[in-house]
Amino acid sequence: MPANFIALDWGTTSFRAYLVAADGSISDSRASPDGILSVANAGFEPVLERQIGSWDKGLPVLASGMITSRQGWHEVPYAIAPAGLPELAAGLTSFRTVSGRAVAFVPGVSFRDAAGVPDVIRGEETQVVGAASGGSGLFVTRGTHCKWIEVVDGRITRFATFMTGELFAVLKDHSILGRLMTAEAASGNTGFALGVGAGLESGAGAGLLHTLFSVRTLGLFGDISADQLSPYLSGLLLGAEIAAARQNFQPGPSGITVIGAPTLAEPFIAALSRAGIASRFGPADAAVRGLAAIAKHAGVLA
Amino acid sequence: MPANFIALDWGTTSFRAYLVAADGSISDSRASPDGILSVANAGFEPVLERQIGSWDKGLPVLASGMITSRQGWHEVPYAIAPAGLPELAAGLTSFRTVSGRAVAFVPGVSFRDAAGVPDVIRGEETQVVGAASGGSGLFVTRGTHCKWIEVVDGRITRFATFMTGELFAVLKDHSILGRLMTAEAASGNTGFALGVGAGLESGAGAGLLHTLFSVRTLGLFGDISADQLSPYLSGLLLGAEIAAARQNFQPGPSGITVIGAPTLAEPFIAALSRAGIASRFGPADAAVRGLAAIAKHAGVLA
Repeated sequence: MPANFIALDWGTTSFRAYLVAADGSISDSRASPDGILSVANAGFEPVLERQIGSWDKGLPVLASGMITSRQGWHEVPYAIAPAGLPELAAGLTSFRTVSGRAVAFVPGVSFRDAAGVPDVIRGEETQVVGAASGGSGLFVTRGTHCKWIEVVDGRITRFATFMTGELFAVLKDHSILGRLMTAEAASGNTGFALGVGAGLESGAGAGLLHTLFSVRTLGLFGDISADQLSPYLSGLLLGAEIAAARQNFQPGPSGITVIGAPTLAEPFIAALSRAGIASRFGPADAAVRGLAAIAKHAGVLA
Repeated sequence: MPANFIALDWGTTSFRAYLVAADGSISDSRASPDGILSVANAGFEPVLERQIGSWDKGLPVLASGMITSRQGWHEVPYAIAPAGLPELAAGLTSFRTVSGRAVAFVPGVSFRDAAGVPDVIRGEETQVVGAASGGSGLFVTRGTHCKWIEVVDGRITRFATFMTGELFAVLKDHSILGRLMTAEAASGNTGFALGVGAGLESGAGAGLLHTLFSVRTLGLFGDISADQLSPYLSGLLLGAEIAAARQNFQPGPSGITVIGAPTLAEPFIAALSRAGIASRFGPADAAVRGLAAIAKHAGVLA
């Protein structure tokens, strides 16, 4: 089947491109660590052509992710939630590259909570719209920043960002909590399980700013071995995220659909399970599905 | 009045020494940035003598703080809460320096909460025992790690550590939250006040892992100016600490006694005030008072 369009999922730390046929099947793909942070100013097109230069320049290119941000190639204003295919298609920003490709960038989505505090997603809107396929549900994306996203009839109604991944990295690398941790891989999951339990309790209990200190004291007193302290911190943060998020987001009978790399999605699903919340993996090609649906809705396909 | 003993308050980042008379008055003092982190292995005595070499070598020296930890000069095992003057005096570890000084180190205190999770203080026990003077109350020390300490009849009954100060530094210097902050000093306190409000809500609301992201989004959307983002983060963390701690610690009618450098104690007292909690500054010489009381109880004075 001939290719229909080129899908780009271009984020902060990674570049992914797909040659997509009309039936949604992927006939070719490229992946590299050329995230926008590692691409020099005005160097986006050279990176793109180095990756997909051999692909038909007559095909439309649809892109989502941080490439559409101020730090990316062309900044696209946020669509405002609630937002689904019509709003994302209406918000497409189109331009032509020097090499002649027709490119359209998908907008991120912004949302203000009841207190008026803004929140944003950029890239996740495309994954979630793709995974939801017009249906409803609660979706959670895993990464440096994790997004809990409520979808009703294919439209993103509200969402919240949790800095779980970044806090884990920052605390491990730059705080006293990393001092007692060993570099060796953990054996078993006793630390992770203890951490999830402590994190789930931290909301109703003494709060995260206090509970975090247990990473140090449990290590100091030998209650948790050095190789289990990193999994303990990971579990603690996941538990705290789940305890807080579940107060505002109801999974419903079908549970939570989790989107992200398996190394991040699996521990989160294990933590959800310990919290008694059902969940399942979302499709690995959620971004491509979303880009295809937006492209079709916008009529930008050949 | 002749000097009675030498008090040392030797912490992670600072060294303080006091020449103390029998009535508690301070006749001479030394302060330097020679905290234990900056003193090379086995170099503690040279630093001590460089600072107080001219003081009478016949006077007993009493020390508290991180100098008594594994990373310090001589590790002293923790006394176990509840602990007051008798337990701290009984736990003194004594040794003689090469230059002939008789030194006694005050133990820190450990405590296990209802779930069996340990917590520790080292140095704060001396400040709090000194500030309490045999009475009762809720004491909070400010620093990299903040301690909420309950004292009943001069004895430390329970306490909890909050990593507020370290989290502020780590998030500002190493996370995305610092990116939009300006180096210039903040004018006014709108950011701080907004942050305290958001932090106080975060416990009952969406949780700290989510609320922290508002430091970025309020900056991105221009809701808070760049010079107010650092005060906003500071207020947010103080509010979250207070919201969590107040669930487990009751200030009582006399309010909270706050111990620490004015630059740290003042914003905390302002945040307590916004939470409707009364507070007052503790004595600036709390450590010396505590060391004097422990020395007297132990009978180590001349």
